[in-house]
Amino acid sequence: MNTFGRHFRCTTFGESHGRAIGVIIDGCPSRIGLSESDIQPFLDRRRPGTSDLVTPRQESDTVEILSGVYEGCTTGTPIALLIRNTGQHSSDYEYLRHTFRPGHADRAYFQKYGWRDHRGGGRSSGRETAARVAAGAVAALILSRKGITIQGKITEIHGERDPDLFLDIIRKAQEKGDSVGGIVEVIVCGCPAGLGDPVFGKLDALIAMAFMSIGAVKGIEIGDGFAATRLFGSEHNDGMRDDSYLSNHAGGILGGISTGQDIIARIAVKPTPSIAASQQTITDAGEEVSLSVTGRHDPCIALRIVPVAEAMLALVIIDAMLANQIYQDF
Amino acid sequence: MNTFGRHFRCTTFGESHGRAIGVIIDGCPSRIGLSESDIQPFLDRRRPGTSDLVTPRQESDTVEILSGVYEGCTTGTPIALLIRNTGQHSSDYEYLRHTFRPGHADRAYFQKYGWRDHRGGGRSSGRETAARVAAGAVAALILSRKGITIQGKITEIHGERDPDLFLDIIRKAQEKGDSVGGIVEVIVCGCPAGLGDPVFGKLDALIAMAFMSIGAVKGIEIGDGFAATRLFGSEHNDGMRDDSYLSNHAGGILGGISTGQDIIARIAVKPTPSIAASQQTITDAGEEVSLSVTGRHDPCIALRIVPVAEAMLALVIIDAMLANQIYQDF
Amino acid sequence: MNTFGRHFRCTTFGESHGRAIGVIIDGCPSRIGLSESDIQPFLDRRRPGTSDLVTPRQESDTVEILSGVYEGCTTGTPIALLIRNTGQHSSDYEYLRHTFRPGHADRAYFQKYGWRDHRGGGRSSGRETAARVAAGAVAALILSRKGITIQGKITEIHGERDPDLFLDIIRKAQEKGDSVGGIVEVIVCGCPAGLGDPVFGKLDALIAMAFMSIGAVKGIEIGDGFAATRLFGSEHNDGMRDDSYLSNHAGGILGGISTGQDIIARIAVKPTPSIAASQQTITDAGEEVSLSVTGRHDPCIALRIVPVAEAMLALVIIDAMLANQIYQDF
Amino acid sequence: MNTFGRHFRCTTFGESHGRAIGVIIDGCPSRIGLSESDIQPFLDRRRPGTSDLVTPRQESDTVEILSGVYEGCTTGTPIALLIRNTGQHSSDYEYLRHTFRPGHADRAYFQKYGWRDHRGGGRSSGRETAARVAAGAVAALILSRKGITIQGKITEIHGERDPDLFLDIIRKAQEKGDSVGGIVEVIVCGCPAGLGDPVFGKLDALIAMAFMSIGAVKGIEIGDGFAATRLFGSEHNDGMRDDSYLSNHAGGILGGISTGQDIIARIAVKPTPSIAASQQTITDAGEEVSLSVTGRHDPCIALRIVPVAEAMLALVIIDAMLANQIYQDF
Repeated sequence: MNTFGRHFRCTTFGESHGRAIGVIIDGCPSRIGLSESDIQPFLDRRRPGTSDLVTPRQESDTVEILSGVYEGCTTGTPIALLIRNTGQHSSDYEYLRHTFRPGHADRAYFQKYGWRDHRGGGRSSGRETAARVAAGAVAALILSRKGITIQGKITEIHGERDPDLFLDIIRKAQEKGDSVGGIVEVIVCGCPAGLGDPVFGKLDALIAMAFMSIGAVKGIEIGDGFAATRLFGSEHNDGMRDDSYLSNHAGGILGGISTGQDIIARIAVKPTPSIAASQQTITDAGEEVSLSVTGRHDPCIALRIVPVAEAMLALVIIDAMLANQIYQDF
Repeated sequence: MNTFGRHFRCTTFGESHGRAIGVIIDGCPSRIGLSESDIQPFLDRRRPGTSDLVTPRQESDTVEILSGVYEGCTTGTPIALLIRNTGQHSSDYEYLRHTFRPGHADRAYFQKYGWRDHRGGGRSSGRETAARVAAGAVAALILSRKGITIQGKITEIHGERDPDLFLDIIRKAQEKGDSVGGIVEVIVCGCPAGLGDPVFGKLDALIAMAFMSIGAVKGIEIGDGFAATRLFGSEHNDGMRDDSYLSNHAGGILGGISTGQDIIARIAVKPTPSIAASQQTITDAGEEVSLSVTGRHDPCIALRIVPVAEAMLALVIIDAMLANQIYQDF
Repeated sequence: MNTFGRHFRCTTFGESHGRAIGVIIDGCPSRIGLSESDIQPFLDRRRPGTSDLVTPRQESDTVEILSGVYEGCTTGTPIALLIRNTGQHSSDYEYLRHTFRPGHADRAYFQKYGWRDHRGGGRSSGRETAARVAAGAVAALILSRKGITIQGKITEIHGERDPDLFLDIIRKAQEKGDSVGGIVEVIVCGCPAGLGDPVFGKLDALIAMAFMSIGAVKGIEIGDGFAATRLFGSEHNDGMRDDSYLSNHAGGILGGISTGQDIIARIAVKPTPSIAASQQTITDAGEEVSLSVTGRHDPCIALRIVPVAEAMLALVIIDAMLANQIYQDF
Repeated sequence: MNTFGRHFRCTTFGESHGRAIGVIIDGCPSRIGLSESDIQPFLDRRRPGTSDLVTPRQESDTVEILSGVYEGCTTGTPIALLIRNTGQHSSDYEYLRHTFRPGHADRAYFQKYGWRDHRGGGRSSGRETAARVAAGAVAALILSRKGITIQGKITEIHGERDPDLFLDIIRKAQEKGDSVGGIVEVIVCGCPAGLGDPVFGKLDALIAMAFMSIGAVKGIEIGDGFAATRLFGSEHNDGMRDDSYLSNHAGGILGGISTGQDIIARIAVKPTPSIAASQQTITDAGEEVSLSVTGRHDPCIALRIVPVAEAMLALVIIDAMLANQIYQDF
């Protein structure tokens, strides 16, 4: 399904090489000041073509608000955001019409649907995340009015933690026709205690789903994450003071409910699967062939996932906040 | 919310120290042979009181099928499974009525609801997972008829990977009034290609949510997981042959869709927060106090999470299989 | 699906001749005083065996609260309500094992599932409505604390509007081995303005669905209903004063949103299909046979639908009220 | 909420006087031939400005397919349909900025949201139904390939059943600055047996919700509807033959499940509330004023509801058909 969220419900649409992509936000609170210029900067951060380390596809990614805003404010009705596709070169993908790219959904997609859109991944393309970023921008604007900020950053590239070395590692991989992965950390500051439900709707469960729904993500951690498995309970438990905690190993969530501390989450991003190096694969007729994915692709997709991860986290947080309204003062 | 799944929908109910816990399964296919004796062995695996390394609470955890089964077969109507609580000693928890346990949801729960059930965690208790195991048993029975098996195991305890040392590590922690965490790996064998959706409903996103909805889980990996971030694309991509893949770094899921290879997932389980060692905490009046959680608790909750993780994965897989039916041969 | 409501979500389970029926209420506000004795009177009103004009099946319909209530108050966790079946005589239905009753779902159910529970309708039985009444009782208790009351009554039996003649009409039909239908009107007093959504979630749309989900209902009206089609706009429009309306042709709902006036709804209940008179029907093998439905059945099911309709309306209203909380003061 | 359907999910957006309206269809089967020219005729039937008896607002209502179609066929990804607004004259509505129109949602909407879009009803406008018709067109195309057709017609205007008199009645009302209501009947031919669920998801319950979600609808009947309340059971029950039924009082649905006979539904449409005749109302400041709604409005909105009702019924039927797929041959 193409809808995310229970109360702040975002339905995205559009293929990489179709006419347009976009999103309907159903359930946005009313009377929030909103214009295209509030959303555009978020899209510009995600946009391709901005450096030699990201795919050079030239998309202006200009957003148009089609509905849900009147006299500069949201009305509570569905907000439709439209982004026309302009920079696609579908013919560049013709050589992939019958060949499955390793590391991509191509083969599984074909097995599922008996069909696939070979042009840049179609609906499976990372381009779909532009619609998420647009929706996340609206969420982030509302959250910022509540004093909540969400900030992501790269903490590791190909095992290296020194940021000064990141670009060098990526360039070297690119020169070899290869790609690298990395780790993105996203932190929510100013989050109130009490978000999330105790059972299936745990806040960290929703965050995990949100992050894992981003292509190329293969792992999620909250707080200490896997490192917690190497601590004793006496080390990992966060002691309490009247107005605070003594530490934040939990990453701001306990028993699925936010504690009011910073929420700290990390995601593992695999190396970009589209590489120039030759790979062994098959066609949709089952013929074994070698494939070199031509054209220029992001040598490290983790870089561009940062704004997408921020957007998804913003959507989770706003949704949890709206959920908390239901039983308040009833 | 207390419902999991879209098509095979499980709604659990019950508190640790209430009269009963249980689950309604809505959407189970009809004409599946099912009796209490099919479900009971799954509950027995999760049951407390079975060794000196798990909580000694004595629960028979006897399941009763209240509806949805007629003449030994499921009918397609809701299956209600009931497990009466029998072994609780609520008075044992009286000293926790006003004191928040570190590492538990106690404080955040209280901040959320302005109230909490101090008796064994109430609805947040691990006891709720018995209902999940009961539902998962029904799912696993159906999956096994399709040739799909799900098997979990402990792969690491407190950083140690040698299984022969696991019990020793746990015992030593227990003797010190402390606890340890671990890593659980769950593998799905025989899973068909094509499960999962390309966008928000990615199979790994649903698995991540399912696993993170289990208490004490702080991290999730699919396939190589975080290790993938340290590989080159040329190393991580799984090449293809006509009838197979050359490797399984992806863990059986690409672009959110199962590839037909084994699905491999791992979860990081934090050390049990309930420990005898003294901890600094506060009461619900904000008074700072020291707390030693008395009684005997699981010194390593990872052990008992294995059948719960298997159950949650079974629920995700059956749900994805039913989802795939919708557009088949339409 | 067996769940009703978005926020006050009720999942019913159980067959007419199984072990038990019941309901899980997920999303009930916390800190509401609740005990079995609050719910039982609602069930007693719906109960069979109370007069010579309703089916004499003897069910005590005793409700047990299994979860969600602690120290006499709701906790916000799922409330499981259980009613054991005691009075069923499954063998009485043996002659119907292969024969479809006209006016019932028997044949369509069989065509849908390739199977059916012939014992009293199984899941399709009116008995399932006892679970709805139990859930509706909880809703009604909460609504009454908000000054909202819901009251149903019979306004017409077999075309007759004089209540003094109702029982006589029913008895005469019963003596002939026949049955009659009627009209039930349900009124909500004290309902606030602003419930319901402008598009698909119109309050009257939800009421229509709720009522039509009761077996034997074949029509719904809000306010003037079908009579409105015979009025001019100038007659039907309800003029306004500062603090009130000049009339209530709309039945308390305009554009899908409650106006604050009484909500007035009517439902058309068909004559009970189970009749002693001989009818032409077929078996599940396609053989044409005559059928006289033996045993005593309600000669006018409209009588017993009154508390069910009240319950369903209570569920719709509480759900709409909770929905309105989401964006309030956000 | 602005989404309709569980499997064939339609999310509409747009206001009467905003930039555009539209719909996202999520869950449409793939490989269905689809182009704008398939949808446009359905919109043309609903379009205003086509005779002297409907509102003369000039809208071309040209639909654009933004996504979900590739090489002339649906792909299974979300289909976004866009209709730009062109004919609105927002300034015409300036005199209504602070005045509530009787018979409309104006006052209730204002009470709910503390705000309203006075320009032609905003989101509450009948214009939103153009998006439903576009979605319904896609559903109808698929249904027609399965041999299912849906046909609506006016059966009564202002109490008159002779079609030859309909236009005359409407014109006379219009000349007096008044309006009239009517009854629309919609019939599904070729519908298979087995659609709908036995409890809350009864097919007639879903139809009732779908129809009542259309503005101005105040009543719903299935089969004999309210007339069934005046029949004996022996008259109303539809006897059976091996391959057919002896009558169709039930209107093609029994116990919530389609029988395979024609589905017959009727809806009561109230007289258009926008009338030139003077009415007593209030402003949003509570001042009592007289109001004559100027401009030309549909004197009988029932005429234009016919294609909308067909569309909603098509959406219900396709959704029920997809639901039936889930457990088929599993």
